[in-house]
Amino acid sequence: MTVIYERVALIGLGLIASSMFWAMKRGGVAGHVTGYARSDETRETARRIGLCDEVCDSLVDAVRDADLVVLATPVGVMGRVAEEIAPHLKPGATVIDVGSVKRTVIEEVGPHIPEGVHFVPCHPMAGTEHSGPEAGFSTLFDNRWCLIVPVEGSDPAEVERMQAYWQALGSNTEVMDAEHHDLVCAVVSHIPHLIAYTMVGVADDLRRVSDQEVIKFSAAGFRDFTRIAASDPTMWRDVFLTNKDATIEILGRFTEELMALQRAIRTGDGEQLHAYFTHTRAIRRGILEAGQDTDKPDFGRVKVER
Amino acid sequence: MTVIYERVALIGLGLIASSMFWAMKRGGVAGHVTGYARSDETRETARRIGLCDEVCDSLVDAVRDADLVVLATPVGVMGRVAEEIAPHLKPGATVIDVGSVKRTVIEEVGPHIPEGVHFVPCHPMAGTEHSGPEAGFSTLFDNRWCLIVPVEGSDPAEVERMQAYWQALGSNTEVMDAEHHDLVCAVVSHIPHLIAYTMVGVADDLRRVSDQEVIKFSAAGFRDFTRIAASDPTMWRDVFLTNKDATIEILGRFTEELMALQRAIRTGDGEQLHAYFTHTRAIRRGILEAGQDTDKPDFGRVKVER
Repeated sequence: MTVIYERVALIGLGLIASSMFWAMKRGGVAGHVTGYARSDETRETARRIGLCDEVCDSLVDAVRDADLVVLATPVGVMGRVAEEIAPHLKPGATVIDVGSVKRTVIEEVGPHIPEGVHFVPCHPMAGTEHSGPEAGFSTLFDNRWCLIVPVEGSDPAEVERMQAYWQALGSNTEVMDAEHHDLVCAVVSHIPHLIAYTMVGVADDLRRVSDQEVIKFSAAGFRDFTRIAASDPTMWRDVFLTNKDATIEILGRFTEELMALQRAIRTGDGEQLHAYFTHTRAIRRGILEAGQDTDKPDFGRVKVER
Repeated sequence: MTVIYERVALIGLGLIASSMFWAMKRGGVAGHVTGYARSDETRETARRIGLCDEVCDSLVDAVRDADLVVLATPVGVMGRVAEEIAPHLKPGATVIDVGSVKRTVIEEVGPHIPEGVHFVPCHPMAGTEHSGPEAGFSTLFDNRWCLIVPVEGSDPAEVERMQAYWQALGSNTEVMDAEHHDLVCAVVSHIPHLIAYTMVGVADDLRRVSDQEVIKFSAAGFRDFTRIAASDPTMWRDVFLTNKDATIEILGRFTEELMALQRAIRTGDGEQLHAYFTHTRAIRRGILEAGQDTDKPDFGRVKVER
């Protein structure tokens, strides 16, 4: 329960920023938290549910005097936000973003950060399929990982402080460079999302199978894809547009592999299929051992009774 | 609590058969249940946990006198099992299978069914990523759908009885033809599984991202794929080999759609991406309204606290 940043400003009040607020309060990590969102409706909701100590009607008011400014908007607008707040940042303040891609954000935000202000890109790898100010909760980051991606000239002391900050919010932390970050995230997050969106789109579009059938029989595997494909469209559009290279690289590998399996199916190569399907079980075991998922059947959605 | 079949034989004692046993006991649906599994170990386990009223060491002993015989082996061996039991089936008995594909099973099992014995293919669309005799539980079929696929000459009275049987086990039921069944299942189950297996395989195989990274950061979307890709390899090998046509058709549609999205990413067409990602949310809403999944964030895996 040590204050790590006295005054914090949250820009963009969606799932991540609102969860950060509740987690900061839980951990006593910040003295005073201001919040800003572009839409009137979001600001009103925030005020109604007590999100932030003060909700500001202007971006500039929100960041004035802040020791830590958190960019938590879709990544596509972070550069513009940085440009607007830059002249109003307190000397010695720290700016972080919480975007899902890093190379593009660093290119777009970095140049606007004034001399004497720290910039430490972060990526809390946590979320749910729900979005908006009411979707947040204090436990979102518990036992999840936050990747910290220092830029050229980042002050090592500030990077360390940032790790302490995320740990106080419940996260584990790891430091990595931007290019590797974007590749890792393409694998564990971006391509899985793209594939899920695609599968749901195909099912919905198929005239010979009705939507009613897709919905009724979804428990056979499909419904898990629909959860991921219910994530925020604006956020994900920006992710794919700003992590183009890694996305297309991993997509190429995925398609190549899928075609190999398609060929095994077409030629009736049962051995290849069986070997492939056996191999993938090991990764699941690793995830369970690392405490990153539940071992309960069906994620615990079924009531198990003999 | 009405006995629908006096004597039932379960052939193959995995997740589905064991769940049927517990559900039959719960509902008082069967008088006496025998079970058979090819492996000694499975039969021993079944005896140890009280699975079946009697575990038989031979297939023929298990089916003798049975009013209902359930083929619950991987679909690839059902034809052989049917051939072996055929001479020992009681006149007037009913044989069902619970395989995930129907056209091939009907082709392979159908010809062995003797005159005077009913054959009613069924597909309970329920399961978890766990397998084996200890994975079963009585509530597995509750509020899930069982598809019933009558063959040429199926007795309508027996089809109706079969619906009553599955309803007594907790399922909803729907009758459909084999070809449509195989297409629907390719969409809601087979292709989602193939894609999940592929994605997990790609992640595991990528040298520039370590398995440790994949495991640690899996909560960002990937872990959901690993659950599906932990399903029984033999069952899934057989599914793809026996539902080749529908699998390859839907795979073609999937790849086409994925390529269109890849193109939108490459050309920076944000509008197309946003529209696509918005559209897919509607299907999720339908699934929640139909009671086929939980609305809790992250399938309820996170502890939500403000």
